[in-house]
Amino acid sequence: MASPEIDALTQALARLPGLGPRSARRAVLHLLKKKETALSPLLRALESVNDRLAICGTCGNVDTTDPCFICADTRRDARLLCVVEDVSDLWALDRSRLFPGHFHVLGGRLSALEGIRPEDLSIDKLIGRVSAGGIDEVVLAMNATLEGQTTAHYLAERLETFPVRLTQLAHGLPVGGELDYLDEGTLAQALRARRPVA
Amino acid sequence: MASPEIDALTQALARLPGLGPRSARRAVLHLLKKKETALSPLLRALESVNDRLAICGTCGNVDTTDPCFICADTRRDARLLCVVEDVSDLWALDRSRLFPGHFHVLGGRLSALEGIRPEDLSIDKLIGRVSAGGIDEVVLAMNATLEGQTTAHYLAERLETFPVRLTQLAHGLPVGGELDYLDEGTLAQALRARRPVA
Repeated sequence: MASPEIDALTQALARLPGLGPRSARRAVLHLLKKKETALSPLLRALESVNDRLAICGTCGNVDTTDPCFICADTRRDARLLCVVEDVSDLWALDRSRLFPGHFHVLGGRLSALEGIRPEDLSIDKLIGRVSAGGIDEVVLAMNATLEGQTTAHYLAERLETFPVRLTQLAHGLPVGGELDYLDEGTLAQALRARRPVA
Repeated sequence: MASPEIDALTQALARLPGLGPRSARRAVLHLLKKKETALSPLLRALESVNDRLAICGTCGNVDTTDPCFICADTRRDARLLCVVEDVSDLWALDRSRLFPGHFHVLGGRLSALEGIRPEDLSIDKLIGRVSAGGIDEVVLAMNATLEGQTTAHYLAERLETFPVRLTQLAHGLPVGGELDYLDEGTLAQALRARRPVA
């Protein structure tokens, strides 16, 4: 259908999460009909992100600067470090505006099923940040999934030798829930009630 | 949240039909994480469409060539002309691969409520194509909505003086239904059973 260029655009959009072939076609038609108000702005936005995309060398966040906007923010409390599985979790906690400290993105979770081992995650870099000192508390903000909690326990063992307070998000996370899907009220409660690792 | 570039991309995606703020954020995160396999292909596709976007001067289809791929297709039956309200309707009928002729896009429907009058639609150009001759049948493939059928009746009056067979899609379209939403089976039935305007 239509030209190869339009087909390619439809297919590229259809591969985005939340979009299927039909919604991609409707999105393409919208872009084609609104070249100035929809297509051009999207194109410019993609170009500038594509040109400046950077992974933060400190925390692993995805941004257009390295260090990222969080690590570069001197108003944040550098003694407070929140460890998350994924960038989407970092964004979810940052949106809640409830955590004043810094973050560390593991890039996943330990998983026997998927064969994801400690060396596959950004754990050595986390140990390095903690052993460098200047951090009073490490919040293990893994998802409330089996693999997330397994990862949290593993990190607790790796970090227990350091002079830092280890905390984890309060129970209150629905079982199987993932941070990116939670409302800010739940995130607030979980952050406020965070407690020392038993 | 995040950098202005990433915010701009999120907002541009959130304005697409079928995407909201949350799904746009997830799409952006997907693009940021998969720069080579997702962001770059989408960027290239948008660029080539943006560079070559063209409205067909003959039928009003949106394509990257003028005349569009349908008007340029010499295997199609030029004596058969299908009039549709919108480009999305043209695409829907073309996807069904059931109509061997050419198309004409009105660019909307007559609507007293929205104040859309005949001169706001591509009707004079349609009259021009028909009066130029070489067309045996004009299929009025308006949506089965009140405004669509009003538009069809108006076109039937404008075209009755010409030596062409005027047909409309068979009833079988659900009341209020729009072509772009119908399954191909329904489209096939409606096309096969098209009948002269009473």
